[in-house]
Amino acid sequence: MAIDLPAELTGLRRDILTMGAAVEKRLNNVLTALRTQDVELAQTVRHGDRAIDEMELDIEMKCLHILALSQPVAGDLRFILAVLRINNDLERIGDLAKGISKRILDMCENAAIQIPAPLLEMSERSGRMTAEVLNALADDDAKACRRIRQDDDRIDDLQKEVFAWVHEEIPRDVNHTESVIDILSISRSLERIADQASNIAEDVIFLVEGTVVRHSRA
Amino acid sequence: MAIDLPAELTGLRRDILTMGAAVEKRLNNVLTALRTQDVELAQTVRHGDRAIDEMELDIEMKCLHILALSQPVAGDLRFILAVLRINNDLERIGDLAKGISKRILDMCENAAIQIPAPLLEMSERSGRMTAEVLNALADDDAKACRRIRQDDDRIDDLQKEVFAWVHEEIPRDVNHTESVIDILSISRSLERIADQASNIAEDVIFLVEGTVVRHSRA
Repeated sequence: MAIDLPAELTGLRRDILTMGAAVEKRLNNVLTALRTQDVELAQTVRHGDRAIDEMELDIEMKCLHILALSQPVAGDLRFILAVLRINNDLERIGDLAKGISKRILDMCENAAIQIPAPLLEMSERSGRMTAEVLNALADDDAKACRRIRQDDDRIDDLQKEVFAWVHEEIPRDVNHTESVIDILSISRSLERIADQASNIAEDVIFLVEGTVVRHSRA
Repeated sequence: MAIDLPAELTGLRRDILTMGAAVEKRLNNVLTALRTQDVELAQTVRHGDRAIDEMELDIEMKCLHILALSQPVAGDLRFILAVLRINNDLERIGDLAKGISKRILDMCENAAIQIPAPLLEMSERSGRMTAEVLNALADDDAKACRRIRQDDDRIDDLQKEVFAWVHEEIPRDVNHTESVIDILSISRSLERIADQASNIAEDVIFLVEGTVVRHSRA
């Protein structure tokens, strides 16, 4: 049974970009909800990740189908392998966004707390890294991906700043403990989102150039 | 350029099991260090994950090489795709073990704290899940993998218990805050290790049966 490989690959590219756009929208919503403490917006992200799960399964099935029925080589094979991985990374970003929405809803129930500046910067940067890597995927832009990977260092520094803030904040007022821990937890999720965006950047570099850059500074 | 596919696949199986054993050893060491507060043992895990990173790259290169030079189908293709994913999951477990070792070293510098029972149980279970899933991989045992996936629910409950403990412990003595947060952080890492073990279980089911069980209870 033969398949029309170019048509399948075009469909796959469209699907992974659609999945990326859906995940990016959920991430943007949760980051806005974090900044504005918008309970309703957080609730839209708390629920409704089933569509993302279904897209993930659908894309995975299509990749396996193509691999099973045709013998893609070189660039086509790399594209399918990269899509399998990116698909997984996007689903994780969606999951992390959902986790953040739960924390925001928790925080809104507890004593009000001022969100620390490094967390806001993490939120802004991890959202931007995700948006940029999806653009780079659409444009096959390996150069942009190398820049995105470097942004991850700043995220790690910000995570340390949030950590220091937590250590100061807790003894200052133990009634805030729950919200402080929610903020710590959100910072971890943002760090992981930035990590996933970096992983996608590595996959795009692999896809475009055939180079594996993991564990390197290249 | 033809390759000897059966020989390559046998080699790949040996390599992924060797990688699994190396990661399992590091995980066991860090879990023992956690239980016994053994600084020296924690330090062995803090350093020396380069060997794991190199194994990961080597296995990935071999998979890509096989995919590029032969046209594996059906079970062989599934095996290679599963190995690519398991390889990645194992490397993450190694990374998480390293992260835990840093926390243990931190904790040993601060005020002594009694490790809460749910954390010890999480540590014991996540170590066992990892060991069991590696045995299941060696034995192509999809049935064991279904059981392993279910163990993940108990881990989530334990994580909630650690969370509750943190909320009680911090107001009790704010001097312990740093160690309490280290424990919270270790619990998150253990939860992620159990998650990765579940992912590997899903990959083994896929490899053996060709069924994708992600997002399902099957």
